[in-house]
Amino acid sequence: MSSCGNNNAAFATTTTSTMRDSAHSQRSNEGGSKLVKLARSFNNFYFNGYKSGDYKPLFCQGHHIGLVSRDVERELLPFQDIFVNYPTKIEICPNCTDYHDITAQVAKVLQSLREKNIFTALKGWRNETFEIRPSFGQKPLFAMERAATCMFGLRQYGIDVNGYVVNDDGSISVWMQKRSSTKQTWPGRMDNFVAGGLSTGYSIRETVIKETEEEANLPKHLAERMQAAGCVSIFFQSERGLFPNTEFVFDIELPKDFVPNNNDGEVDEFMLIPASQLVEKICDPQMKTTSCPVTLDFLIRKGIVTFESEPDLPEVIELLHIPVHSLYS
Amino acid sequence: MSSCGNNNAAFATTTTSTMRDSAHSQRSNEGGSKLVKLARSFNNFYFNGYKSGDYKPLFCQGHHIGLVSRDVERELLPFQDIFVNYPTKIEICPNCTDYHDITAQVAKVLQSLREKNIFTALKGWRNETFEIRPSFGQKPLFAMERAATCMFGLRQYGIDVNGYVVNDDGSISVWMQKRSSTKQTWPGRMDNFVAGGLSTGYSIRETVIKETEEEANLPKHLAERMQAAGCVSIFFQSERGLFPNTEFVFDIELPKDFVPNNNDGEVDEFMLIPASQLVEKICDPQMKTTSCPVTLDFLIRKGIVTFESEPDLPEVIELLHIPVHSLYS
Repeated sequence: MSSCGNNNAAFATTTTSTMRDSAHSQRSNEGGSKLVKLARSFNNFYFNGYKSGDYKPLFCQGHHIGLVSRDVERELLPFQDIFVNYPTKIEICPNCTDYHDITAQVAKVLQSLREKNIFTALKGWRNETFEIRPSFGQKPLFAMERAATCMFGLRQYGIDVNGYVVNDDGSISVWMQKRSSTKQTWPGRMDNFVAGGLSTGYSIRETVIKETEEEANLPKHLAERMQAAGCVSIFFQSERGLFPNTEFVFDIELPKDFVPNNNDGEVDEFMLIPASQLVEKICDPQMKTTSCPVTLDFLIRKGIVTFESEPDLPEVIELLHIPVHSLYS
Repeated sequence: MSSCGNNNAAFATTTTSTMRDSAHSQRSNEGGSKLVKLARSFNNFYFNGYKSGDYKPLFCQGHHIGLVSRDVERELLPFQDIFVNYPTKIEICPNCTDYHDITAQVAKVLQSLREKNIFTALKGWRNETFEIRPSFGQKPLFAMERAATCMFGLRQYGIDVNGYVVNDDGSISVWMQKRSSTKQTWPGRMDNFVAGGLSTGYSIRETVIKETEEEANLPKHLAERMQAAGCVSIFFQSERGLFPNTEFVFDIELPKDFVPNNNDGEVDEFMLIPASQLVEKICDPQMKTTSCPVTLDFLIRKGIVTFESEPDLPEVIELLHIPVHSLYS
């Protein structure tokens, strides 16, 4: 049923072709431009699993916060005091409302699952937690190890920075990175200038300053030029799990003489690429699939991809903003 | 059941409070910021009727193109040769693939319904048609009178222009219009600088040039500065029907000494408003509800509404881009 083998049974109910981190997946039976196919591929869970009914809603304090596959559900059965299994839902710590208590109880379960070594997701354990909220604007209910959130379909948040240069002829070139070949996820793939997850203890602005410094050695006086430019939201599935992901997007116009330099070992190389070549680059499986929406949103906002170059523009743009904050309510 | 009375029975199955053209409707039982409530109000059909199961899918040549309410379905029953009624769908001209034939057959039905004078939507008859396509990038299947498309939940397309001025201190002011009090739809309401529907015979670029000239007397040499800036998509319902609407968005920075001047009698007044006041303006029921997403998208792209001013920013942005091109497939 799955090419992942017995040691890797999570999410075995979906086909392998839509699940690999390592390649862009496609709904091959559908028409449309190459960009609309790409946009469907980074929303493969929205178009497939989400409508399948194969996932059980996950609740905490009355809020529907996630989705649990049958494989994960089965492994949670021994922990019924923390993940209570009802016929139509799973509920986390029904009698507890304390952030720290719930965080500790959930962490205990995850450590136990990690020791069993059956979930791909948990092999990438980070010792870094994400805040789990009913909606982004609300107080967190608890925190969970970053690597585990995808096993529960919990919404994740990150920051992404488009670092670009305006050339003498007015055209734009964009700094892209090649991820380190030793990274836990998407090793060696092409990625945007700078990106990072929104972890416990850091605000959006703190995260973007920290990540641009660590990943690209961007000095503070340049970082202050960064412009908030909205968000993208997608619903992706890989062999690790579900990713209802929202990225807060920033643009920064960089001086022509600035050359990024990695400080944290997470980047192998930076490349300055003419924006006119980026559609081709992001359609290449060498690009990290879940970073494509940020590049594409930038190309559209800058008027490089328009209704004149892209016949399916309305559908493409909609698929950069899947309503992940409305799907669970 | 409806405050519309017998002469106005279309869409009588939904409550009046969510249906008026004349006021912003709200899901009063939900929390969130004023902008997220506004964004839900211009997607009132996505959150309510769409999930109700009260609408029958409308097909043409194998493509699911729309949704039909029970009230409209009942009035279509005498025209079974053109709108064939099956238990689970309605199909337009099953044995015909000719654009002009289908257009003529459908027009005959609409003229007949117009004479019966029971649908609010048809009282705004325009003698202007919209192209009906399986998806935006595909060839049209037929054309339909603009005023009728909302009775069938057919996707509509338009253009919207944000005309703005950069002040000496770097801040932005935006030209807004007060719609003519004699307009068929949303008379007297506040609206964006220029907007118009994408009618048969006009490309997107032709429409935007035509509308900026007619509505605001924008000279061609200024119109050429216009920047394509993507699309917004919403799924709204009013007493007239359903609006799965996509607007192609353009920005134009105007010279400080340019003053718009209406040429077609559709605008009562233009006002130059500081961008910092626009959140308040669009949350006011004096604003045309379905134009708010364009203003809001502009404020977000220009970094005026950010994650620091808007706690529910991810959800707000998602609701500016409802996947209307994926909901019917």
